[in-house]
Amino acid sequence: MTKTEQPRRQSRPAFLGDLFESLTERGRRLLGWRETEGRDAIEAPDLSELAERLLSRRGEASGVVLARGLLTAFDHADPPARLAFLQTLADRFGPDPELVGPAVAAVQKNPGAVEAVEALHAASEPRRQELLRRLNLAPGGTAALVRMREELLRHLRDQPDLRRLDSDFAHLFASWFNRGFLVLRHIDWNTPASILEKIIRYEAVHAIRNWDDLRNRLQPTDRRCYGFFHPQLVDEPLIFVEVALTTSIPDNVGGLLDLSRQPIRAGDANTAVFYSISNTQRGLAGVSFGNFLIKQVVEELKAELPDIRSFVTLSPVPGFAAWLARTRADETSDLLDADQRIALAALDEPEWHKTPAKAKALRDPLLAAAAAYFLRARDKAGRVPDPVARFHLGNGARLERLNHLGDISANGLKQSHGLMVNYLYDLDRIEVNHEGFAERSHVAASDSVTAALTATRS
Amino acid sequence: MTKTEQPRRQSRPAFLGDLFESLTERGRRLLGWRETEGRDAIEAPDLSELAERLLSRRGEASGVVLARGLLTAFDHADPPARLAFLQTLADRFGPDPELVGPAVAAVQKNPGAVEAVEALHAASEPRRQELLRRLNLAPGGTAALVRMREELLRHLRDQPDLRRLDSDFAHLFASWFNRGFLVLRHIDWNTPASILEKIIRYEAVHAIRNWDDLRNRLQPTDRRCYGFFHPQLVDEPLIFVEVALTTSIPDNVGGLLDLSRQPIRAGDANTAVFYSISNTQRGLAGVSFGNFLIKQVVEELKAELPDIRSFVTLSPVPGFAAWLARTRADETSDLLDADQRIALAALDEPEWHKTPAKAKALRDPLLAAAAAYFLRARDKAGRVPDPVARFHLGNGARLERLNHLGDISANGLKQSHGLMVNYLYDLDRIEVNHEGFAERSHVAASDSVTAALTATRS
Amino acid sequence: MTKTEQPRRQSRPAFLGDLFESLTERGRRLLGWRETEGRDAIEAPDLSELAERLLSRRGEASGVVLARGLLTAFDHADPPARLAFLQTLADRFGPDPELVGPAVAAVQKNPGAVEAVEALHAASEPRRQELLRRLNLAPGGTAALVRMREELLRHLRDQPDLRRLDSDFAHLFASWFNRGFLVLRHIDWNTPASILEKIIRYEAVHAIRNWDDLRNRLQPTDRRCYGFFHPQLVDEPLIFVEVALTTSIPDNVGGLLDLSRQPIRAGDANTAVFYSISNTQRGLAGVSFGNFLIKQVVEELKAELPDIRSFVTLSPVPGFAAWLARTRADETSDLLDADQRIALAALDEPEWHKTPAKAKALRDPLLAAAAAYFLRARDKAGRVPDPVARFHLGNGARLERLNHLGDISANGLKQSHGLMVNYLYDLDRIEVNHEGFAERSHVAASDSVTAALTATRS
Amino acid sequence: MTKTEQPRRQSRPAFLGDLFESLTERGRRLLGWRETEGRDAIEAPDLSELAERLLSRRGEASGVVLARGLLTAFDHADPPARLAFLQTLADRFGPDPELVGPAVAAVQKNPGAVEAVEALHAASEPRRQELLRRLNLAPGGTAALVRMREELLRHLRDQPDLRRLDSDFAHLFASWFNRGFLVLRHIDWNTPASILEKIIRYEAVHAIRNWDDLRNRLQPTDRRCYGFFHPQLVDEPLIFVEVALTTSIPDNVGGLLDLSRQPIRAGDANTAVFYSISNTQRGLAGVSFGNFLIKQVVEELKAELPDIRSFVTLSPVPGFAAWLARTRADETSDLLDADQRIALAALDEPEWHKTPAKAKALRDPLLAAAAAYFLRARDKAGRVPDPVARFHLGNGARLERLNHLGDISANGLKQSHGLMVNYLYDLDRIEVNHEGFAERSHVAASDSVTAALTATRS
Repeated sequence: MTKTEQPRRQSRPAFLGDLFESLTERGRRLLGWRETEGRDAIEAPDLSELAERLLSRRGEASGVVLARGLLTAFDHADPPARLAFLQTLADRFGPDPELVGPAVAAVQKNPGAVEAVEALHAASEPRRQELLRRLNLAPGGTAALVRMREELLRHLRDQPDLRRLDSDFAHLFASWFNRGFLVLRHIDWNTPASILEKIIRYEAVHAIRNWDDLRNRLQPTDRRCYGFFHPQLVDEPLIFVEVALTTSIPDNVGGLLDLSRQPIRAGDANTAVFYSISNTQRGLAGVSFGNFLIKQVVEELKAELPDIRSFVTLSPVPGFAAWLARTRADETSDLLDADQRIALAALDEPEWHKTPAKAKALRDPLLAAAAAYFLRARDKAGRVPDPVARFHLGNGARLERLNHLGDISANGLKQSHGLMVNYLYDLDRIEVNHEGFAERSHVAASDSVTAALTATRS
Repeated sequence: MTKTEQPRRQSRPAFLGDLFESLTERGRRLLGWRETEGRDAIEAPDLSELAERLLSRRGEASGVVLARGLLTAFDHADPPARLAFLQTLADRFGPDPELVGPAVAAVQKNPGAVEAVEALHAASEPRRQELLRRLNLAPGGTAALVRMREELLRHLRDQPDLRRLDSDFAHLFASWFNRGFLVLRHIDWNTPASILEKIIRYEAVHAIRNWDDLRNRLQPTDRRCYGFFHPQLVDEPLIFVEVALTTSIPDNVGGLLDLSRQPIRAGDANTAVFYSISNTQRGLAGVSFGNFLIKQVVEELKAELPDIRSFVTLSPVPGFAAWLARTRADETSDLLDADQRIALAALDEPEWHKTPAKAKALRDPLLAAAAAYFLRARDKAGRVPDPVARFHLGNGARLERLNHLGDISANGLKQSHGLMVNYLYDLDRIEVNHEGFAERSHVAASDSVTAALTATRS
Repeated sequence: MTKTEQPRRQSRPAFLGDLFESLTERGRRLLGWRETEGRDAIEAPDLSELAERLLSRRGEASGVVLARGLLTAFDHADPPARLAFLQTLADRFGPDPELVGPAVAAVQKNPGAVEAVEALHAASEPRRQELLRRLNLAPGGTAALVRMREELLRHLRDQPDLRRLDSDFAHLFASWFNRGFLVLRHIDWNTPASILEKIIRYEAVHAIRNWDDLRNRLQPTDRRCYGFFHPQLVDEPLIFVEVALTTSIPDNVGGLLDLSRQPIRAGDANTAVFYSISNTQRGLAGVSFGNFLIKQVVEELKAELPDIRSFVTLSPVPGFAAWLARTRADETSDLLDADQRIALAALDEPEWHKTPAKAKALRDPLLAAAAAYFLRARDKAGRVPDPVARFHLGNGARLERLNHLGDISANGLKQSHGLMVNYLYDLDRIEVNHEGFAERSHVAASDSVTAALTATRS
Repeated sequence: MTKTEQPRRQSRPAFLGDLFESLTERGRRLLGWRETEGRDAIEAPDLSELAERLLSRRGEASGVVLARGLLTAFDHADPPARLAFLQTLADRFGPDPELVGPAVAAVQKNPGAVEAVEALHAASEPRRQELLRRLNLAPGGTAALVRMREELLRHLRDQPDLRRLDSDFAHLFASWFNRGFLVLRHIDWNTPASILEKIIRYEAVHAIRNWDDLRNRLQPTDRRCYGFFHPQLVDEPLIFVEVALTTSIPDNVGGLLDLSRQPIRAGDANTAVFYSISNTQRGLAGVSFGNFLIKQVVEELKAELPDIRSFVTLSPVPGFAAWLARTRADETSDLLDADQRIALAALDEPEWHKTPAKAKALRDPLLAAAAAYFLRARDKAGRVPDPVARFHLGNGARLERLNHLGDISANGLKQSHGLMVNYLYDLDRIEVNHEGFAERSHVAASDSVTAALTATRS
């Protein structure tokens, strides 16, 4: 690999002074910096002006220098200046009114003309989109834009006007981070530490406590980890999934993460368990990777280990406890009957899960409630209320099993009274499941789940 | 590198039968194939129907399989079926009228509302764009789409309606092949043969006769070759430039390509000569790479060889002879004066360049005409008539020198009476030059070129 | 990969002047060069003196500089100086007599003492061995030493005293090029051109005419090529084998090399044919690679293509025609009987192979003679006379089939009257075969070969 | 990189059962295993018998299988069986008496004949050497042999006869791990975790407490780490050195390792400090890497950072406190005079280093004693007593500075009363220094060190 092929990394924004020094006299002039100012007296150039210049004719000749300058200056601007710049992009870099007016008129004049509509589409493109494309010319530009959007997202609630800018980011990122451009990589103990520390940092489901915990998830013969990477973000997994190879569908997470567990040989496994899947880049919110990742990992594992027959998750149920509290409080709801309500009162006793008799007595009522939560409950928008369920069911998975006391960590008890569930990925069924779910909100579920619905009602 | 990181290659379209065999029962069902048909009886599924399915909700769950199936089926369809599919895309996958109508109405109702305009932009996006994005999900999808557009371009003249589809390709390719996603690579004698054979095939300026000729352009210490590659087209340079390192600005191409030439040490060179630059992918027409390539190679060479001071081209002048013939025939043109016209009559004598006296006598008149061609002549659109000149001047280069008898090959004599020119890339001047050229059609030229304009007129 | 990991290449010896310039004042002093001499006045330093210095105590501190200097100086010395240096190594860098004498005495005094014998072994090591080990410290040292031995081998016949030096090379190379240090690589059309041109150059069995011919042996789905590489000789295959995947054991080479042949799918093959195996480094003569290469390629192919059942060669019989001429001339030989001698007279007719009737009539007598050549004839040293046969039989292969008119090229007719043979590698039989051959000169042969022996005698 | 190029790893010995399963019937037969025994009933085959077989004629055909079997069986044998095997190698695989006797006789008969001496050398080679070479044929063989010698070294003290075997290991390893076969690699935060954990484990000078401490030595702009790797031990650095880039020669290690330190830019440094150098493979004891490593890293840093002028170590003085205790106890020694002895008595006060006045008062006497330790003291073998000093002075470095209280860790106080020293590597002086040290035990020292010798004596 020659020097010029090296992937471009910009793990942290370069110093403004470094940028200044690296520029020729020409570059400084372009960015509006005077030679005499010296390193210490550098003021960030005006961001909006740089943006206009980058979009201008002159920007064609000097795109890379201007883009790099603008992104570095943005990184070094103070927070108010950065926010002001984002607002400027939202306000002043929309569609060009001088182009839109005539294009609309043309459509009005001849409503059926496809050409006119397509011309209108082009004319109404916000100028921001071309600006973002040109910013992407800079070395490390893609990463810088992902960071920029991450910042933007933090302001969205307070500044709803920024939503316009956000939708342009979303549109371009969907194109740039198209599945076709992603690379699946096996992450293991031979992976560079600079990537592994991000796995530790980004793990969102079951926190990785330290490097030993990490190694325990990567190195044993019955563990796998895969991530999607983008050629422009070489050290950054966009999403990753942790997999355990087992001989049965697990019903709790404690055994999977046990550091003293004895690994089995990969070839002896018949089940692959996706027990954690984490997105890493908040700046890529809304660009969907998880669906593709799970399916491609299923294909990889099938090819490598033909004896694996079941591909399941071991998943949290983050909305269950809150839903159950609301439903118990709502005496008009028919999702729980009177017997259930009485039985579930035991949930209010502290530490109930530590008393085997209490835990056992709660089992059937809780699973029945859980079945109702998945199969019958709907939120105000008519959706299945659990976000993790929506993700897997939307991918075409089936709700396979409800696991009482699958996660007895403090968090597990709090969010779901300890409930965990398995979703099953059967590639031969995913379209049917997906379609049923997408079009009719039909939840694909195993017999055991369906049976649980009525278990206590007989 | 684990197996899953391997770049995806699809050097040739897979056999339809291979695809069939590689599919599970589910995949065949998805693509509308019946199991019983067997390998030999496979009929390509209906392309338009597959496209509709890929855009439908169901396509979300099975995107990769559907995209791969559609692209493979397209590759194996016969030419009329392929053309019909392209026409269908142009005709039936435009903006959705049910979305456009209300969006236009909303803008009309409230002409100043930016939100409405931006909503209209979204509503008027041709459905083709999303379809092309989804086709890109397939392994090798990007390459297949580039090939598809190459085919499309061949039909454009006869089928102007296809232009609508073409502009969607152009829009998406500009985004996907953004400079930020390209990788510059040094191409040398250690480069895989599978890439080198493409250099031989694609060289557009000075044909490479065989592998020895190729080695002579790659291996000597005073030769370089660089190309841009895209992560999705691993074996395909998108554009490449051949460079000679010299101790002076060369005035003819014969010496550069001489197989028996004695190489100099790279460190002894003071001049880098870009003597050939070739685009390779007709399917990427309109996506501009050359400007960025030349500038990045200048940066690379500056870093590696600080003694190099001049970065010049040695370029053909493809439009000169035709322009000169037209201008000589047009007696009203003031671009040539009477003395010139008389002197230039010697051009009509066959083999004039082989007689030193004749060649010498033609030198000044020819160079004066060439200077007029570059500095004064304009085509009907008001542009500098030479396409190569437009490229380099548009990049901000300066016309540095006119070389009499720089290329005495049959083709060189035919297209430009043997004239070659040097363009100079001075990074400190390119914006000024670019701006002058873009906004005022001003041709940046050295004193020697300007002087040539009037050389024979005194 | 960081810069420092780049494999060290020295495709051609550096210029002596380059070496001079690259040295610090200290390096020049070490090599006995004066600063004032300048690039053009460099005289090679005295090689023997450098060698003594490298072996001295001082050499420990400056080993790399001295080793590099000596090897570069050797490369630039004129042939007589190089030969003189080799002779000096043979004459003056043998075992140190001051060490050997006492060590021999110690053994004599106590003949049974193992320690004394082992001390004697150490004391009697030629000083050359340590010198060669230290020369190997230089960047590119291994390659330079292989070249040095290649030169040495050319002088061996005329200068038998050099044999002492040669045996030290052989001893060290056997250790350095131990199978454990070799890397098997698939050579295909994605291999760098710098390696592929060596395949063209080194192919020893069926010459590769040009790059198209090469591609025809690498790129089709039913062709493979593998080579052994050494970490210190990154661009140089040490040995390579060309393989054809077929559906039957081929009986002639023309069909295999046919450029217009229609490839089959690799998965459809049941036979792998090793049709060419070439050593590349004359400097490594006597270090055996072929045996390991064939067996490892068999393992590779078995793992990749489990349907392949037969692993055979298609081999020349280089000694057959000469042997047959001698045997026919020797009327006392019982390896041919009278009928055979008469029938074989037809071989003396020019172009006999072009007349089908003649060719057919010669078939049985020729094959019978061939069977005698392999199974009964022995050379003066009691060995099977054919060198290719000795190689494969020594590896444990079995002589499987005799192919009349398998190679009708001029060379094939001249060396073996067109005969080619197949050797079969059956891993389950190779030890038995090897042992029979090594200990009892027993030639493992198929029934068809054994039958041919007596075919015409009935 | 094709599949077959993957470096061969054998991070831990394969299960004996895995080996059994991976063998064909033929392989099992070779290793003396019966098919019927099954995985659980596998007995290790007799190691000595396998060794004889590997050395036999038959071993030529099946070398890889036999070598792999023997090494795996050795790894799974119990400790007594392993020791017994090592003893067998030492006892029964020495030189072949049947070859040695006649060879000695030939030398006796003709004492001056070089050929006879060289033949004797060959005849007296212990059979072990060829056995070890053949064991190296196995995948992972080199690593297994390094582990085998590590075990051997642990028995050497108790079993001095094993020394014979050890010297064969040493001889072969010196050849196989020749500097010419080592690869220098930059180790940084992008290095695989599997290698980095070895850095943590093997660091021998200043223990690395955890991954944060490690990152602090690798990732900052002013830190470097380099190691030598061997192509056959891909994940194992053989030796590594940690480097700090600074603006002055440091006099204590605390500042270098401070986690809260502010890094400087590499380009601003003028000094490179080798503050830790660790060998990793006990099995390679006696094969010297450190000298080459330091010198090559100096070359690397010079090329990358031309502003670095000084290359120094910051080194412990492990033998100082013990020597000083002995010398103070020996009243006859003239290495300390009476005044020094009185002043040094303060060393016996606990925690003296925490009282500034005491620490200051001890400074000059301690440094004077240290100067005597380096410059005047000699051990029984006449050597400089400090092992670290012998290493650096033997490499040609100069003792540059004595640093009072350079290491006030418990260990630093205990072994050297807190003393640390700097050795300076000046490539232009190393031969002279090396030679003076090697031949005359002359210690190259700066004026300040020499001055310290007499500082308190005036």
